[in-house]
Amino acid sequence: MSLLVVGSVAFDAVETPFGKRERMLGGSATHFSLSASFFTDVRVVGVVGGDFGDEEMAVFRERGINTDDIERVEAGKTFFWSGRYEFDLNTAHTLDTQLNVFADFRPKLSDESKRARMVFLGNIQPDLQSEVREHLRGAELVALDTMNYWITSVPEQVEAAIRRVDVVIINDAEARMLSKEPNLIKAARKILSWGPRALVVKRGEYGAAMFTQDSYFAIPAYPLESVFDPTGAGDTFAGGFMGYLASRASVDDEALRRAIIFGSVMASFNVEEFGTDRVRRLTHEEINRRFSDFKRMTHFEEIPFERAVRAAE
Amino acid sequence: MSLLVVGSVAFDAVETPFGKRERMLGGSATHFSLSASFFTDVRVVGVVGGDFGDEEMAVFRERGINTDDIERVEAGKTFFWSGRYEFDLNTAHTLDTQLNVFADFRPKLSDESKRARMVFLGNIQPDLQSEVREHLRGAELVALDTMNYWITSVPEQVEAAIRRVDVVIINDAEARMLSKEPNLIKAARKILSWGPRALVVKRGEYGAAMFTQDSYFAIPAYPLESVFDPTGAGDTFAGGFMGYLASRASVDDEALRRAIIFGSVMASFNVEEFGTDRVRRLTHEEINRRFSDFKRMTHFEEIPFERAVRAAE
Repeated sequence: MSLLVVGSVAFDAVETPFGKRERMLGGSATHFSLSASFFTDVRVVGVVGGDFGDEEMAVFRERGINTDDIERVEAGKTFFWSGRYEFDLNTAHTLDTQLNVFADFRPKLSDESKRARMVFLGNIQPDLQSEVREHLRGAELVALDTMNYWITSVPEQVEAAIRRVDVVIINDAEARMLSKEPNLIKAARKILSWGPRALVVKRGEYGAAMFTQDSYFAIPAYPLESVFDPTGAGDTFAGGFMGYLASRASVDDEALRRAIIFGSVMASFNVEEFGTDRVRRLTHEEINRRFSDFKRMTHFEEIPFERAVRAAE
Repeated sequence: MSLLVVGSVAFDAVETPFGKRERMLGGSATHFSLSASFFTDVRVVGVVGGDFGDEEMAVFRERGINTDDIERVEAGKTFFWSGRYEFDLNTAHTLDTQLNVFADFRPKLSDESKRARMVFLGNIQPDLQSEVREHLRGAELVALDTMNYWITSVPEQVEAAIRRVDVVIINDAEARMLSKEPNLIKAARKILSWGPRALVVKRGEYGAAMFTQDSYFAIPAYPLESVFDPTGAGDTFAGGFMGYLASRASVDDEALRRAIIFGSVMASFNVEEFGTDRVRRLTHEEINRRFSDFKRMTHFEEIPFERAVRAAE
């Protein structure tokens, strides 16, 4: 089994300047696994309530995602999040959060899950992330995401969790908050000093960057004329990133760089429509075409400047 | 004569979280020409007052910049700007602006200036930019910069000036304001519909982008651990961009892309110290080394994803 994700499976209600959905499939593990499923075999560890139907389960199964470790609490309700985006789509206003069965989520890892080669710890309570990490002794590469809520309330737990993983995938505001460094380069150095091999920084419309001990990589975002619904973009990015890595026999710097591109490609599709709509019907051809677009839009020839000697000299 | 710049020559007083200068050489034509002088021959059209000394003039001459068209109004004072930067250095608060001799600036182009092959119209009154443009009938490539003040007060003059040039170099907020389009891709399409061959968008700490009719190019900024004084970064960028283009026999898409990199390289040096201090003592070796850094930090191999056929299939 190649890739495991631990995170939320949810129903989202989303309002953007372009439309509204009362209830659609969402959650970090959902967006992550759908995205990663284009690159590798994925298994989800999560929890849903009795209101989670066959129709929703089918979305995972149609993409070949293993749902054996999605626990079902018949008496409870699925995690529900409701949000509204302003015109610029950069900030989500949370209107309602009902944790429901997610409030008592204790990830239960089957023996097969424990044998995962690579793991993504989605944004859950950081001590839970550390606990799950302990069960994955054989994992080659473990990544985590977190959020401002945990960074503010339990920073020492977040740092402890980061000390146990190989890759941290967060946005730039979170990197600054976590390190207490306004400069991103200094922030990255501090976070890397805690042990991870790589820090991946999501910058929304400005792209993404990756810091390792001895290299820096940065790319712009794919230029989109209309962003429809940014919900899940970060997890979709992480899914493309980790899914691509899991498809490789080994993870070197070149593979990490291409993983950043595939993550960006997947996120750029995700925001084009509501929820999981666009990613669900993606094709490998579309993914590879946009990967090539990224190459085209960032490529330049490395020809150093040589000043011609002036006639007068 | 290869490159002409029309713009301000000024004294700046700048306060940043890292220090303070009461009076130093500044102005758009100053930052532009110093930067461009590393790539080509530059000539400045501007105006200074009787308080502009030999010491200041020497800064231009030491870099081989032609100052014959810098008019000197003995009875007047040089343009003075005073500003303060907040901790994040992204926004400048203007404390004082004394236009002085710059208030009545009417660019006087000598015959040699009129023969310029390439021209940068720095941020001056847009009707003046159009007027200067009319005198440069033989120019191969003319670029302009503008600012929110003109976009708000005389938008039709700004549009008219843009219709007369080949390249527009502005920041992203200005592009959105000018086109009345919040989405940058739509904004770019609208501005290009007015006629320019290329729109270059400066994004500060997020890098730069270039739009043409049929291509998009974007790069991140050079990662700096400490930005000291951002004053003049935009003009220094434009100087590297135009200077590099002027050093080439022809301007194709590949040259434009490398020009964006050289512009970014020059701007990244400019912000490392106060005013013109860092750029003045730069070497071609330092410039080329940072150009290579840009290649290294954006490079990835274009290997499309191919999913291995699973054994079970």
